Amino acid sequence: MKCRKCKAPAEVSLPSHNTAFCRECFAAFFSGQVEKAIRHHEMIKPGERVLVALSGGKDSLGLMLELAKQGYDVSGLHVDLGIPVSSAAARAKVEGFCALHNLSLRVVELEKEGLPIPDVKRYINRPVCSACGKIKRHWFNRVALTEGYQVLATGHNLDDEVARLFANTLRWDAGYLSDQGPCLPSENGFARKIKPLYRLSEFETACHAFLNGIEIHTAPCPYSGGASFTNHKRLWADLEHQSPGSKIAFYDGFLKRGRPAFAQQEEEQGPLLAPCERCGSPTSTGLCGVCRLAVAVSERRAADPNRDPRG
Amino acid sequence: MKCRKCKAPAEVSLPSHNTAFCRECFAAFFSGQVEKAIRHHEMIKPGERVLVALSGGKDSLGLMLELAKQGYDVSGLHVDLGIPVSSAAARAKVEGFCALHNLSLRVVELEKEGLPIPDVKRYINRPVCSACGKIKRHWFNRVALTEGYQVLATGHNLDDEVARLFANTLRWDAGYLSDQGPCLPSENGFARKIKPLYRLSEFETACHAFLNGIEIHTAPCPYSGGASFTNHKRLWADLEHQSPGSKIAFYDGFLKRGRPAFAQQEEEQGPLLAPCERCGSPTSTGLCGVCRLAVAVSERRAADPNRDPRG
Repeated sequence: MKCRKCKAPAEVSLPSHNTAFCRECFAAFFSGQVEKAIRHHEMIKPGERVLVALSGGKDSLGLMLELAKQGYDVSGLHVDLGIPVSSAAARAKVEGFCALHNLSLRVVELEKEGLPIPDVKRYINRPVCSACGKIKRHWFNRVALTEGYQVLATGHNLDDEVARLFANTLRWDAGYLSDQGPCLPSENGFARKIKPLYRLSEFETACHAFLNGIEIHTAPCPYSGGASFTNHKRLWADLEHQSPGSKIAFYDGFLKRGRPAFAQQEEEQGPLLAPCERCGSPTSTGLCGVCRLAVAVSERRAADPNRDPRG
Repeated sequence: MKCRKCKAPAEVSLPSHNTAFCRECFAAFFSGQVEKAIRHHEMIKPGERVLVALSGGKDSLGLMLELAKQGYDVSGLHVDLGIPVSSAAARAKVEGFCALHNLSLRVVELEKEGLPIPDVKRYINRPVCSACGKIKRHWFNRVALTEGYQVLATGHNLDDEVARLFANTLRWDAGYLSDQGPCLPSENGFARKIKPLYRLSEFETACHAFLNGIEIHTAPCPYSGGASFTNHKRLWADLEHQSPGSKIAFYDGFLKRGRPAFAQQEEEQGPLLAPCERCGSPTSTGLCGVCRLAVAVSERRAADPNRDPRG
């Protein structure tokens, strides 16, 4: 197979786009998709500082590298979850990556913040994945706001976005359907949230990381019982196989014709927000959700006769 | 396996409902689902006359039998498409069924109306299935209105409805999403359209027809290149298998939380309708779509040197 653009031997075949590329032309394709996403949704304005959430996986590290190459003012933020073995390994990949590419990195250690995920798992009676997601989003947003970033970028790819949209659609969850998208405006104390990889499939972001020689953290989280949305991702792989382009058509169609209907309905229904009494993050209650978690973990740890000595 | 209700040997297993029934209890379950649909959506008011569209398949004949058993004032309407062999076979099943159960039947012959489907296929340059559907709906509605029926019932089951909703959702077709549902109100010259089987799966309507000994027309239409929505039906079979109850949850969730958002948006955007100049059916153009088809077929047939002698 030959590269559709320059006729050199192809290294990546992309059936959704009915094409194949050599290494250089794939890089140009990848950059083009990111540029298109940023331009079309006005994700980053001139002079804005961008904080990139780095987990250590292919998507977040690939995004960071691409935004830096395109000349944006980017800094990385890694949240060290404090999970034995796993968190140190992920953090090492992120630190190695940023050092290699001379990119600035800020690390938040949940251990130091009183909320290591093992304690959340032990003391909080709710699914640990949802609490962990909430805590990470809290810190992404808090660092963005307190350290002068206008934009918070995450590495969600097309498969992530389609699987999430599909789950929200199966439930017809009007609240989520009114504001899922690749660019959520800055408001109510939240930084603008952008997903510049939303037009690229998981396969494409994996190829990008591989072809750029990025060393990534690949081990699944020891606390997740299998990746979320796995069945839906398989179902969408079948739909895409039967009809290439289905995923982006579903997602783009939602942005154009689905979301506006739900957004109109949800308008004026948003809760009033005020700064959290403890950390200053916007919240509709006196203490924000993450500070309430931190207080609960700290109380229960103190009362636990078998507690980990580090507590 | 035993009947969940009366402990007799079960004849039908229904994993979606996590149950199994003997013949009598399945009949009660089936009736209950139809009653629930009719009551919940106020499909039929006391004293109203119901026209049931009968294709000759399991769904439409099963619906007719059930509505008659429940005491509704029902008459059948069969549209004879004029397709060689196939149409005569379907019509014979419908006529035999109505004679056996002493139910009144009206037959519209498209041959006599100048629009036999073979001529539509031959002379009209658009997919024959969509034209055929349009012509059938036209006649269902026209007979309902001109012969004093307030309600038009069709045999669409849950799988039909979910497959159609899914296709409309994949495209985010706001127009269709604003008015798909099991009960469309009478307005603008259209009879109220109801789908009393929408809570029952294809497997359940098939069991109902089989257990009631209904002789049905099963041959696929010779003009359809494979049933529509087949891939989507398979995909939904997988989802239902993984998570029983997914189909009805998706459809009910749409009715409660999805459709209202689109309906609100589409309000006041409907076209102005006036009676068709030729047949009196409501239309937004001078001549309705089916009369335009009839005129086109008649002109092209007259100009065709190789035309079928019956024309």
